Amino acid sequence: METDSRHRVEVCFTPRSFDLYKAEYEIVVVIDVLRATSAICTAIENGVSRIIPVSTIEEARAYQQQGYLAGAERNGQVVEGFNFGNSPFSYMDSSLKGKTIVLTTTNGTKTINLASSIPTLVIGSLCNLDALCAWLIEQNKNTLLLGSGWKDKFNLEDTICAGAITDQLHSSGKFRSEEDSTIAAKFIFRSARENIFSFLKASSHRRRLRNLNLNEDIKYCLTPNTLTSIPVLKEGELVKLNYNYAPVSEQNK
Amino acid sequence: METDSRHRVEVCFTPRSFDLYKAEYEIVVVIDVLRATSAICTAIENGVSRIIPVSTIEEARAYQQQGYLAGAERNGQVVEGFNFGNSPFSYMDSSLKGKTIVLTTTNGTKTINLASSIPTLVIGSLCNLDALCAWLIEQNKNTLLLGSGWKDKFNLEDTICAGAITDQLHSSGKFRSEEDSTIAAKFIFRSARENIFSFLKASSHRRRLRNLNLNEDIKYCLTPNTLTSIPVLKEGELVKLNYNYAPVSEQNK
Repeated sequence: METDSRHRVEVCFTPRSFDLYKAEYEIVVVIDVLRATSAICTAIENGVSRIIPVSTIEEARAYQQQGYLAGAERNGQVVEGFNFGNSPFSYMDSSLKGKTIVLTTTNGTKTINLASSIPTLVIGSLCNLDALCAWLIEQNKNTLLLGSGWKDKFNLEDTICAGAITDQLHSSGKFRSEEDSTIAAKFIFRSARENIFSFLKASSHRRRLRNLNLNEDIKYCLTPNTLTSIPVLKEGELVKLNYNYAPVSEQNK
Repeated sequence: METDSRHRVEVCFTPRSFDLYKAEYEIVVVIDVLRATSAICTAIENGVSRIIPVSTIEEARAYQQQGYLAGAERNGQVVEGFNFGNSPFSYMDSSLKGKTIVLTTTNGTKTINLASSIPTLVIGSLCNLDALCAWLIEQNKNTLLLGSGWKDKFNLEDTICAGAITDQLHSSGKFRSEEDSTIAAKFIFRSARENIFSFLKASSHRRRLRNLNLNEDIKYCLTPNTLTSIPVLKEGELVKLNYNYAPVSEQNK
């Protein structure tokens, strides 16, 4: 009999399949590259103290009526009556420092709430890729990478991000994978990594956002490692994980 | 506004996501490369006149008690009390010519029954790849390629087969795709095509079958174009589609 004491890292493409995977994992990384989790990482990095993810516009509106700042996005656009949607650029405003924001998006916040049954839930994007991977490798636990997809369908950008995380975790020597979805995600990432922007030019969500004149958002969300914060879910709120990421280049100084 | 009169070919990775895709298609191709649809194509090519796909072992047993020949496979193995499972080699027996067979398998037959709401349902595998593609191109209708997966999870071999079909349909110039799943399947196929057997060596189902000493089955199922029959669902039974496939090399003679 083979024995293999390494922990598992696996990729689940969409919330639709989450129940097929969820039993075995101690950590889940929720990924919605275009754009919810990129925006959440940006907000937390820029000093927003808490983000409350809610699944419906009604919930967001109820919070808003209590005086909360609230963001709401559906189908790529800001919902009428809300302060912002899920453009990362709207979360860079210094007036948001220390604030609590309520957020609902088409895919990302629903996925966060779905996956909150897993003991530790963190937010992944290409923006915080290296910091997140360094932290996951330190934790060394069974880790599920959960794409948000688009309305429950598979999407390429979340898969590429999940593949990038898988690749780093495998390289650490501490993680193994068994699922075909994980093999496919890593393979697609390795093929795309030299130019993710170009690789995704035919993808459905890029077409969708390009039609909304969101090219700057797309470029930002597809650029790896502009941030080092890792948002973590604590009692229903996303806050900054207490983790000091030292890039390898810094460690070697 | 762009207009594009080409029909669509799209890939749905697993039965779990079928309801997200099903509305728009006139033809569905059910794929379960390892091994149900490879076995079904083999049986029909070898003269079996009808295959009745059923979802449960109980249904198969009920048919068996009425005197039908019945095959049943679960988790890669023949179910006790049945004549065969889903090894293609068991369907090459000349004594099966003209017979009706009832079949239930872990993934494939369930997927067939799930997708039977689409007007035309045909069976795809790598074994009948070129003949199937030639027929699909002649039909020129919106076509869904539906992988059976493994217990509702994504698998690589069905995705590669779907990608191979997509590739041929795109090459005809008559079909377009919008879904990221389709882009990914075609991309994985194009990367794997020089040596599908080797590409799949890490896949979960190959490990599963290798452990059951089914390497000959795997080699057979991963070898393209050994067959030219296309099974089609007619009133709940899979029969041979009336189509005379002439390979391009024959046409040019």
